[in-house]
Amino acid sequence: MPDYETFELGNIVLQSGATLRGAKLAFKTFGQLNAAKDNVIVFPTFYGGQHYQNEAIIVEGRALDPSKYFIIVPNMLGNGLSSSPSNTPPPYNKARFPGVTSYDNIMAQHRLVTERFGIEKIAMVTGFSMGAQQTFHWGALFPDMVERIMPVCGSAKTSHHNFVFLEGVKSAITADAAWMEGWYDKQPTKGLRAMGRVYAGWAVSQAFYREEVYLDLGYSSLEDYLVEFWEGRRVEGDANDFLAMLWTWQNGDISANSLYDGDFHKALGAIKAKAIVMPCRTDLYFPPEDNANEVGHMPNAELRPIESIWGHLAGGPGWNPPDAKFVDDAHRELLAR
Amino acid sequence: MPDYETFELGNIVLQSGATLRGAKLAFKTFGQLNAAKDNVIVFPTFYGGQHYQNEAIIVEGRALDPSKYFIIVPNMLGNGLSSSPSNTPPPYNKARFPGVTSYDNIMAQHRLVTERFGIEKIAMVTGFSMGAQQTFHWGALFPDMVERIMPVCGSAKTSHHNFVFLEGVKSAITADAAWMEGWYDKQPTKGLRAMGRVYAGWAVSQAFYREEVYLDLGYSSLEDYLVEFWEGRRVEGDANDFLAMLWTWQNGDISANSLYDGDFHKALGAIKAKAIVMPCRTDLYFPPEDNANEVGHMPNAELRPIESIWGHLAGGPGWNPPDAKFVDDAHRELLAR
Repeated sequence: MPDYETFELGNIVLQSGATLRGAKLAFKTFGQLNAAKDNVIVFPTFYGGQHYQNEAIIVEGRALDPSKYFIIVPNMLGNGLSSSPSNTPPPYNKARFPGVTSYDNIMAQHRLVTERFGIEKIAMVTGFSMGAQQTFHWGALFPDMVERIMPVCGSAKTSHHNFVFLEGVKSAITADAAWMEGWYDKQPTKGLRAMGRVYAGWAVSQAFYREEVYLDLGYSSLEDYLVEFWEGRRVEGDANDFLAMLWTWQNGDISANSLYDGDFHKALGAIKAKAIVMPCRTDLYFPPEDNANEVGHMPNAELRPIESIWGHLAGGPGWNPPDAKFVDDAHRELLAR
Repeated sequence: MPDYETFELGNIVLQSGATLRGAKLAFKTFGQLNAAKDNVIVFPTFYGGQHYQNEAIIVEGRALDPSKYFIIVPNMLGNGLSSSPSNTPPPYNKARFPGVTSYDNIMAQHRLVTERFGIEKIAMVTGFSMGAQQTFHWGALFPDMVERIMPVCGSAKTSHHNFVFLEGVKSAITADAAWMEGWYDKQPTKGLRAMGRVYAGWAVSQAFYREEVYLDLGYSSLEDYLVEFWEGRRVEGDANDFLAMLWTWQNGDISANSLYDGDFHKALGAIKAKAIVMPCRTDLYFPPEDNANEVGHMPNAELRPIESIWGHLAGGPGWNPPDAKFVDDAHRELLAR
């Protein structure tokens, strides 16, 4: 028995023009929706993550408190639980899985929230990394519905540099002949391991390695950290799913839709939600400068960087306790506004 | 006719214990050695580079002026001109080419300088990136011979983070089945292209991409920059040569030898040369913090960062004119000390 539910989306037409037939949105809820339906938090997942990882900070007594809030964690399309290359029946399976945007994700999540639960207002949307990108999209696409947003280590639009970082990740997977242009029957594990090694240098900071934080975390050596953590977390996944989410990431842009026609500043300006935008000071692919620029165009936003050497991973749900407390405090403060 | 000369090293025993038989050191000289033999500059090559790229800043009227100085550019072992996997006869060819350290390189270069030219003092050693690493090695291994050093965008010891960045580069090449564990007859071009894409995000800064500098350089789009510059410069090379130089880089450490027995601070402290150590402020794999730490242990060194958004490539010989002028001015100033 899975520990999550599935919302049947039916046939959804994506921004690309493809129709994903019998599309599914896997989700999990925590806590109870109150009578006024005003205690809702939406907490989308990150790249390669599923609702399981988000659960770490949905804890009684912490900001995302299931005894107070009704917390919905929708799984991103492509993550292996919601419709993905790995679980979609032919003909849209594997390499033929269509490009899905964050816009497509948020439209699906909006249907879940409104059709399944009859919710009209969301107290807060928050998320880490690609979850932060989805958070920005919620704010821009449904400005009258979303009261607060707190994107952590993610941007409203994927920068050129971030795009290039992802080209490196993608090329590592696809250099493996066993990938077979996506038509593999067995995972291209050499490519997935290479992907893990490429990722390892990007996701935490230079100082994280300089101070050998991985030893404090219990890894026995640098190589052990690379194999156990970085290769390990990638070989458990599906190559096409990773590539599908990567496509979503590379194409992240809150203005790439008919509401804003590519006018990025207009889309940022339309976000009415009270916002704390939270980069990490040492994040190498979502650097604070990109968020600072975004905050400058948002009417109700504050920039609040995490001062940490954990780089991008500083924002991971509960991963580094001091950073997690910093995130938790901000969640609490924003919810009280 | 090659435009360079070759110094026959004979059989050299490497730090690893392997003997490289009939080893060759390719080099080119510029200018004339004066009678006092006190106008010598040694200018080693960088990763994937050959003496051709260094020539760009060996120009009359600039600091590295061949009308004043006798400038020796030794090609790094593994770079395709000096002994390398691609040009060594069996049995030490291809995948069997032994690991060569910067120590091994500097010992070979020292023989060239002393045996071939009878030089006893070097006015300055300078180099970019792995050339900077060789520069540090010269200073630590021959402190009474080297009067000045100016390492640009490189460190005396490869940091853990830098090592991990290189793991990503390496895994991109080796994920290609056509690499055949090094025993290919045809280049693994898919892996080399992947290597180029992995490199692209690292070698220049986030701001370089944010400001779309590649368009100013004449590339027609981001993808054009990735294909023409990054894939293009890698598919021209040899995979095993790249991996050999990468091994040298990963094992860079001025104290990893019997002189210093791994005592890094002692090795830094032994560098008598007047030094300007020049990182770039936005270098993602040789960040200024590592050089700052090194300078703190060097008796005659000054830290002088290049304030540029060109990241690591700011230090490339002549690549970005304002940065090149900054380097040139420092060369001139150091030579005058």
